[in-house]
Amino acid sequence: MTSTTIKLSLDEIFNLAKAALINNGANEENADAVATTVTNAERDGSISHGLFRIPGYIKALQSKKVDGSAVPEIKEVTPIIFRCDAKNGFAPLAHQYGIEKLIKAAQKFGMAGLAIQRCHHFAALWPEVERISEHGLVGLTSVSYTPAVAPSGGTTALFGTNPMAFSWPRPGKNPIVFDMATASMAKGEIQIAARDGHPVPLGTGLSPSGELTTDASEIDKGVLLPFGGHKGSVIALMIELLSGPLVGETFSYESKERDNGDGGPVQGGQFILALSPEICSGKDTSDQIEQFIKRYNEIDGVRLPGARRHKNREDTGPRQVNAELINTITRLRDES
Amino acid sequence: MTSTTIKLSLDEIFNLAKAALINNGANEENADAVATTVTNAERDGSISHGLFRIPGYIKALQSKKVDGSAVPEIKEVTPIIFRCDAKNGFAPLAHQYGIEKLIKAAQKFGMAGLAIQRCHHFAALWPEVERISEHGLVGLTSVSYTPAVAPSGGTTALFGTNPMAFSWPRPGKNPIVFDMATASMAKGEIQIAARDGHPVPLGTGLSPSGELTTDASEIDKGVLLPFGGHKGSVIALMIELLSGPLVGETFSYESKERDNGDGGPVQGGQFILALSPEICSGKDTSDQIEQFIKRYNEIDGVRLPGARRHKNREDTGPRQVNAELINTITRLRDES
Repeated sequence: MTSTTIKLSLDEIFNLAKAALINNGANEENADAVATTVTNAERDGSISHGLFRIPGYIKALQSKKVDGSAVPEIKEVTPIIFRCDAKNGFAPLAHQYGIEKLIKAAQKFGMAGLAIQRCHHFAALWPEVERISEHGLVGLTSVSYTPAVAPSGGTTALFGTNPMAFSWPRPGKNPIVFDMATASMAKGEIQIAARDGHPVPLGTGLSPSGELTTDASEIDKGVLLPFGGHKGSVIALMIELLSGPLVGETFSYESKERDNGDGGPVQGGQFILALSPEICSGKDTSDQIEQFIKRYNEIDGVRLPGARRHKNREDTGPRQVNAELINTITRLRDES
Repeated sequence: MTSTTIKLSLDEIFNLAKAALINNGANEENADAVATTVTNAERDGSISHGLFRIPGYIKALQSKKVDGSAVPEIKEVTPIIFRCDAKNGFAPLAHQYGIEKLIKAAQKFGMAGLAIQRCHHFAALWPEVERISEHGLVGLTSVSYTPAVAPSGGTTALFGTNPMAFSWPRPGKNPIVFDMATASMAKGEIQIAARDGHPVPLGTGLSPSGELTTDASEIDKGVLLPFGGHKGSVIALMIELLSGPLVGETFSYESKERDNGDGGPVQGGQFILALSPEICSGKDTSDQIEQFIKRYNEIDGVRLPGARRHKNREDTGPRQVNAELINTITRLRDES
């Protein structure tokens, strides 16, 4: 299958996304925050978190599941724990309100946590952790979603695809950062493989009858598995706990139960941790880190996580965007 | 291969371990802490972390690499960050000194971190996190070691087997807890498979020429791989950073470079995080957790991590211990 693409500058991407959100009920501030997140994803080449997400964001506005005028409320529970009530809004504005406070507290006390409740997260996680690392801090976060992944050994979905992201600061350089689902493969990747008739590695998921298969269309009807068998499964379990009950929010199965099924992002929680290597270690470790990275990069066949995205980021030129998607979003921007 | 075993009560295991450590230079307090850790491992059926480790602990005492009379020093860097100089000693005493403070700070502020330096860790990680969860807190920790695992895509060892452990509290019950290497398989398991001529799954490791193989003896001469491919590899990378530079300590390759090669545990760092779900969430989540566990356990073929160890723990009777190992440790206890 081929698809026509159209070139859009990063500004055009931002303006299109923002105007479409505003036309569907988001206020200036929320539309700006979501459009920034979407544009940064296109910029970094993470197109599955770029404009591709706008129709879903808008479905959630149209069904009134999400409040496009939400003003997140932050409570300083202790000097290092902030609880953010996202007030039924999209995650990016909650991050704008909360992460600033998180960073300041971590710089003062060595560590701080942001517990976000009533939040609709529909994006990658690296924006949160990279932002933290811009301030010399380590960032760590995760979210759950709705059941799509069976615990290792089982055939019933219980976990979300449950991504986690981690970022380590490098002064004047891009951080070491990863952002990955704990599912063996993203749901979207399975759907594309199914559409194109491509096999997927054994262990990616199970057919509806619970059998291991390389047939993506069978897995699409069945269930995904965690990456890395039992070990990946317990990490997915940890993410259920840290993204749900730790912050006073839902497990994936509870998020699904309370969702209206409009196709937009479900409501859930997020925990974001910021850590100061300087305070914890008592020293400047940047030389030690750079020596390690040198050694790492000298190994043939390996690459630093995040490097591909950061490379894409250097290109400030226009991006190729699916023409049909642009038409859809343009309609959403213009129709009254 | 069969091996003769001898029954020892948990008290006998403790006394044998402690006396052997004291006979080789550990003081009462350090010997007690290490023997307790070793006995708890035998009690839980983690025999590779039980008496099996005593000869290694003693090698490190004999070579004077480890100070058997170390008195860990704890500095309160901020109200929630404690830095522990283990003073060249074994980890268990550093834990006894530090974790108490960590727990109190996390109960007050919602979160706290313990950064351990100059520490020789030669045990499982669940004792640290389970102890934290006994006080209603979430525990998370990891350690690195010496290079044994190649980053995904590479053929050169850079990472240690880098275990991590996580524990979630359940009032009046055993916590949800996992403790796992981020290597596909523990080095000891490979050696046992090599000895017995058993194949291991493809993906476990590489031969000396860098080829995937199911031949454990080839992997034993070559290099291990992380669990779960690229995703497991970035988790192993995260552990290098959190267990080394974050706490002012070494990467695995640096730990090896400064080690004397006596076969005892190398010196390194450890970060231990404690989190209060009550403070972060603002509510009591125990009912929600129990409902989730019920749902989890209803899935055929899955089991809660930690459950097998906790089941073993209920048995307070004697344990079967390898007779040759008992002879070795008895000699170490008695020789002058």
